[in-house]
Amino acid sequence: MSDAAPLFNKLCLIGLGLIGSSIARAARARNAVREIAAYDASPQVLARVRELGIADDASGDLSSALAGADLVILCVPVGSIGAVARTCAPYLERGAILSDVGSVKGSVTAQVAPHVPPGVHFVPAHPLAGTEYSGPDSGFSTLFENRWCLLTPTPDTDAGMVEVTAEFWKRLGAKVEATTPEHHDLALAVTSHLPHLIAFNIVGTAAHLETVTQSEVIKFSASGFRDFTRIAASDPTMWRDVFLHNKDAVLDMLGRFNADLKSLQGMIEQGDGQGLFDLFTRTRAIRKGIVEQGQDTAAPDFGRPHDGKAP
Amino acid sequence: MSDAAPLFNKLCLIGLGLIGSSIARAARARNAVREIAAYDASPQVLARVRELGIADDASGDLSSALAGADLVILCVPVGSIGAVARTCAPYLERGAILSDVGSVKGSVTAQVAPHVPPGVHFVPAHPLAGTEYSGPDSGFSTLFENRWCLLTPTPDTDAGMVEVTAEFWKRLGAKVEATTPEHHDLALAVTSHLPHLIAFNIVGTAAHLETVTQSEVIKFSASGFRDFTRIAASDPTMWRDVFLHNKDAVLDMLGRFNADLKSLQGMIEQGDGQGLFDLFTRTRAIRKGIVEQGQDTAAPDFGRPHDGKAP
Repeated sequence: MSDAAPLFNKLCLIGLGLIGSSIARAARARNAVREIAAYDASPQVLARVRELGIADDASGDLSSALAGADLVILCVPVGSIGAVARTCAPYLERGAILSDVGSVKGSVTAQVAPHVPPGVHFVPAHPLAGTEYSGPDSGFSTLFENRWCLLTPTPDTDAGMVEVTAEFWKRLGAKVEATTPEHHDLALAVTSHLPHLIAFNIVGTAAHLETVTQSEVIKFSASGFRDFTRIAASDPTMWRDVFLHNKDAVLDMLGRFNADLKSLQGMIEQGDGQGLFDLFTRTRAIRKGIVEQGQDTAAPDFGRPHDGKAP
Repeated sequence: MSDAAPLFNKLCLIGLGLIGSSIARAARARNAVREIAAYDASPQVLARVRELGIADDASGDLSSALAGADLVILCVPVGSIGAVARTCAPYLERGAILSDVGSVKGSVTAQVAPHVPPGVHFVPAHPLAGTEYSGPDSGFSTLFENRWCLLTPTPDTDAGMVEVTAEFWKRLGAKVEATTPEHHDLALAVTSHLPHLIAFNIVGTAAHLETVTQSEVIKFSASGFRDFTRIAASDPTMWRDVFLHNKDAVLDMLGRFNADLKSLQGMIEQGDGQGLFDLFTRTRAIRKGIVEQGQDTAAPDFGRPHDGKAP
């Protein structure tokens, strides 16, 4: 892969958190671009990027970072992406691809599209990858390997530009698929946003119990609770923005979740053992599908990090 | 540890699933007992135990399995433990310790206590350990290492018998703590039963969506959903029994969860970004406590099994 010629001359990353700094590392490791410029609103982040040496230029001058860039990726929280796009717009090169990594595509498209200058190709993207850590130190070059990256171009986006954006993500190790912003936001509401919402909520519930002390909750967490805390440790700013910007789909999924939970609660109240058994048998089957499609290993999690000690 | 003298002469395990077969393996590996007898209602399970060679006797004769056993551990689902205890009672040796591994202690105590013959010491136990797999093949000798095992003796249980039961679990690598059945059931309702209930529910919700196909749910599961599917793949019989036998505490915790979820839903509806941010910041802090107390590692989960590739 890394023997292949670079796909872009100059990549400019706006925002060097977990995702932006991972793109920088992966693009260099995979020889995806000739040059990398980094810009971040935080001087501390830029200083750290210079120390880490993961970009060729991280001087803090936006116009020079964007000058000559044929691929610009906005890696900022969804709530600030409109303002960031407006700030960058005057410096975007004609013919450049403008992309992003936002977790909500409808809102991102609505916020960014008005600022895209003529001759610049806007190709929204969302790599389904991440960890519970934030900041330029937390990124790493293999983050996107074997993960999906969803592109949500508009019908009038130049097909060649979509293609080369897809090539870029494939070069970074990702699998690429295109869909509409609406379908993306619905699919992610169920596979990502609702699970995060539920995890944040259950960890919050546990935090303000009086009958069971917080130290007990932490001590006995390996019995199930622990898996939720990792998700609930995700970046607060990013997730605040996700819920505010994908409000309708999230509330829709939450409504379905609540209705199902009410019926499950009824089974427990009425002692409906057969109903519980049938539901739990169905959910077990879904896990099988995930393991079979390579989105997780079959190695059991022994109530501790997957340590590979198979029986 | 394994140089120490055995703590018991003969261990009899009733039920050789994930937990029972792990106890057999661990007790032998750690030289905790001189002899291991295994009994299971299923001839297939017993045949497999013989093939695996993890017990000295797995002949299928209950009276000979229990003869001479000074430690008997019932490793069966909570829903059948009363009947199993009644069946075993006539064969229990005077002076023996009768224990179990059930996830609900109030119900287990109520079901088993009436069948405990005079001179037999009943010391209920619950090792907080497991995986999403079931059956004698899924067990392994290190399952209990660095995990908690909770004992819930009654006030009139012989203290020396509680002590030697604790020693047994420590020999298997566990950390031991004693508490009341009531407090155990409340603590586990929040750290284990509610998380499982929620995971079963959300996976169920995702399974019957029409707008997002099941294949998309599986494909994009690494974005959060996947972590729930592992929990929701746990043994259906065991979990049916847990919810039916810890009904009150589970419904209490579910009520609190629902109230919190309603308030979280309100924040999203009203666009209360500050409220969301504050909650997500609090939940992130709880994760820190879990990592610091050694119940998980700080190694990030990169949207894939923990592979230790730290940045």
